[in-house]
Amino acid sequence: MTAYDDLMAHQRETQALAQVMGRLGWDQETMMPRGAAPQRGEEMAALESVLHARRTDPRIADWLGAINEPKLDEAGRANLRHIRRSFDRASKVPAALAARIARVTSEAQGIWAEARANDDFKSFVPTLSEVLSLKREEGQALAMGGDVYDAMLDDYEPGTTGAELEAMFGALRPELSTLRAAVREAEAPPRLTGTFDENAQMKLTRQLARSFGYDMSHGRVDKAVHPFSSGSGLDVRITTRTNETDPFNCFYSTIHEVGHAAYEQGIDRNYLLTPLGQGVSMGVHESQSRIYENQIGRSRAFTGWLFGQMKDAFGDFGVSDAETFYRIVNRVSDGFIRTEADELQYNLHVLMRFDLERALVAHDLQVNDLEAAWNDRFEADFGYPVDKASNGVLQDVHWSVGLIGYFPTYSLGNVYAGCLHDALRRDVPELDAQLAQGDTTAATGWLNQNVQKHGGLYEPKEVIEKASGQPPSESPLLSYLKGKFSELYAI
Amino acid sequence: MTAYDDLMAHQRETQALAQVMGRLGWDQETMMPRGAAPQRGEEMAALESVLHARRTDPRIADWLGAINEPKLDEAGRANLRHIRRSFDRASKVPAALAARIARVTSEAQGIWAEARANDDFKSFVPTLSEVLSLKREEGQALAMGGDVYDAMLDDYEPGTTGAELEAMFGALRPELSTLRAAVREAEAPPRLTGTFDENAQMKLTRQLARSFGYDMSHGRVDKAVHPFSSGSGLDVRITTRTNETDPFNCFYSTIHEVGHAAYEQGIDRNYLLTPLGQGVSMGVHESQSRIYENQIGRSRAFTGWLFGQMKDAFGDFGVSDAETFYRIVNRVSDGFIRTEADELQYNLHVLMRFDLERALVAHDLQVNDLEAAWNDRFEADFGYPVDKASNGVLQDVHWSVGLIGYFPTYSLGNVYAGCLHDALRRDVPELDAQLAQGDTTAATGWLNQNVQKHGGLYEPKEVIEKASGQPPSESPLLSYLKGKFSELYAI
Repeated sequence: MTAYDDLMAHQRETQALAQVMGRLGWDQETMMPRGAAPQRGEEMAALESVLHARRTDPRIADWLGAINEPKLDEAGRANLRHIRRSFDRASKVPAALAARIARVTSEAQGIWAEARANDDFKSFVPTLSEVLSLKREEGQALAMGGDVYDAMLDDYEPGTTGAELEAMFGALRPELSTLRAAVREAEAPPRLTGTFDENAQMKLTRQLARSFGYDMSHGRVDKAVHPFSSGSGLDVRITTRTNETDPFNCFYSTIHEVGHAAYEQGIDRNYLLTPLGQGVSMGVHESQSRIYENQIGRSRAFTGWLFGQMKDAFGDFGVSDAETFYRIVNRVSDGFIRTEADELQYNLHVLMRFDLERALVAHDLQVNDLEAAWNDRFEADFGYPVDKASNGVLQDVHWSVGLIGYFPTYSLGNVYAGCLHDALRRDVPELDAQLAQGDTTAATGWLNQNVQKHGGLYEPKEVIEKASGQPPSESPLLSYLKGKFSELYAI
Repeated sequence: MTAYDDLMAHQRETQALAQVMGRLGWDQETMMPRGAAPQRGEEMAALESVLHARRTDPRIADWLGAINEPKLDEAGRANLRHIRRSFDRASKVPAALAARIARVTSEAQGIWAEARANDDFKSFVPTLSEVLSLKREEGQALAMGGDVYDAMLDDYEPGTTGAELEAMFGALRPELSTLRAAVREAEAPPRLTGTFDENAQMKLTRQLARSFGYDMSHGRVDKAVHPFSSGSGLDVRITTRTNETDPFNCFYSTIHEVGHAAYEQGIDRNYLLTPLGQGVSMGVHESQSRIYENQIGRSRAFTGWLFGQMKDAFGDFGVSDAETFYRIVNRVSDGFIRTEADELQYNLHVLMRFDLERALVAHDLQVNDLEAAWNDRFEADFGYPVDKASNGVLQDVHWSVGLIGYFPTYSLGNVYAGCLHDALRRDVPELDAQLAQGDTTAATGWLNQNVQKHGGLYEPKEVIEKASGQPPSESPLLSYLKGKFSELYAI
């Protein structure tokens, strides 16, 4: 055994244990009996402590030092890059700080949930202040004198900086606002009415998952409160939800999660249980879920097919033709909640969170003033005031669990999806003809070959640039949104 | 922190990780997508290696040496007894041998399954010989000059020896044979006919589980190929199966597994994630599953209630009255398969396995001759020849996975159930009146207070003796079976 072999054998076991942790999380949200929660907490804490010890195992440094890197192939060098980054990160953060963050964020989630239920941001201020302070301390340890927010961002989107995002988002925001204002003045499409049997929704949603290439022999679809995708490699499960009056919530949650799951399922099997065997970053992950959900799933061609499927499943549901159905699916509506926002407005929600969290990290904004800052920014961007904290600053779980630097990856994913969509349209001219038949083979095949199969082989920006043929930029996304919504709203 | 506190904190994490392993096993049999099997194998191997390292952690010896045992309370001393036994066992078996047993038995299960599918014992001989030889080697390491089979048995039934079982089973066998012969000469009750909707079976089976006190807030019921109970403490799940023409298979599998699960759920919550927080032995575990299934579940009083439930669920199913129903439930039928055997014949199946495996371990029987020995013994005990290996020597998975010394705990469990049943009848004179209403509260409450809640506090024989008021003996089981089947068959 060479040092590289030893290191990779060690990694493989660590990856396998990390998959077990993911499985426990899935079980908790789908199958676990309610009363098991306290025991499950101990089980996950015990496994987390095993994982932490493995990730900071001093032998990793020895192995890394002993490896003759130039002799490795491309995948071998990429493995080392990931292992070095992870080990370096784990070693920079003092164990006591890591343990404290784990404990505080675990409690904070409950306090946030209660504050949200009571629409009472003030009761959450001390906890959020502590989380922010601990995460800032961690960021400082990681940054070693560099930019703290960049160090936080690096956990989710290696190789991208706050300044780059600021420039990109700065170009997006005014254009999105202008487009949004024009759409709001135009005549709106109708809304969906009626009720839709939830068992029939689940049946159609499974069919949709299959039609997007989700491999049921390596996954399964269940219901959960929040849709998510979980696992890598040979066992990638998704959840969705049903609402009697809103079947699109079920279908597009499923398509979104299938985008994430197809990425994980589609990675080269040679990378199974290695550092290359997972999606390379949150942004690239989100590019897959969003292009499945929006550029493909909400296209005129695909919704035409879906209209027929829904008529088969639900009979006449009060929509006369495919064009009206397309307009209903893509309706732009006022609302407070990010996760319910349409394709046009979604990024405005994210951009304000990015600005606010950067200001918090830089001490330019105090947690005490966060609710007022949120409400001011929301009214400026959306044109109407926030009515309660659960529709405003308390709506997302992220900050409570210490996910700072995570929000921008949602919009970066949309930007990446825009770049990929341009290239996909260029390379697959027959795309709409296929989608109109409910056939996503060409689209998902192209994404697999150009993005998904690589797993962690390339850095995030690199994989997008290789796939799209040019450096990532917000322009394709903007052109796509302008084109789509100008035509839809005849503006 | 004292040495005892340190030891118990270490144990608690180990127990939590062992629960995770149980959860993976449950998932594998119920939820896991088929294609995930190879990855799951690696996940479980990685976790097993973590568990092995924790169980042989040299700090355990240091802690054990530093503890002032007389200062501990009864539970503390019982904890030490379990920890010492487990550490002692793990330390006696060389790591290389343990790893080899794990690898060989994991492969052997597949080879056994194929041999069974082909009714070809010969193709299984080399593998079974290797398993036996490795397990014998392990037994020798554990026995340190003592009896090898006793050392094997000690893994499942601490404190009981092969000689004790031989005496007990030697008293059982001729009596059971005589009773069986008389029953076979008497007029048999009718058989159940017709079909029974499988969804309605699952609905009634969940109601049965609840009626036996199974706590659904700390468990769940799913379908699986083989019924089992999994987990301890706050998360104890069971599985059952359905067969359109045999609803009793579903109902009595459920009641059996609820017996196991109620034991785990009913242990004093103070013992959660400690060595006392699980059933104390296989025999005591089986005593709970069998008394739930047979002495309670197949009693005239309870089947009277079940008859009404089945009429409600399935309408008229061709059985005219409760007495006929009782006789159908308890019908004694010819058959080859242990797991399908009735209460009267079940132990004859187990006793032959006990004699055969003891002879194998003692070199008195060669694996090459095992099929012939099985077939001879079967015909002698049952009166008709084995028709094929899958109905004979290849029917059980146990030996292939290295479970030698396990089979006798099934019959010991029945013997224990007989002892407990006598005491239960003595202490709860109103039992039948309650069971006739489908109310098991008094029965399950008595078992909880006298057996289940103690978990690992007492040694196996000790807990049965305390509960029943006398040392364990086969007499109560024999009297119960003779009384029940003489009356049923009018002999």
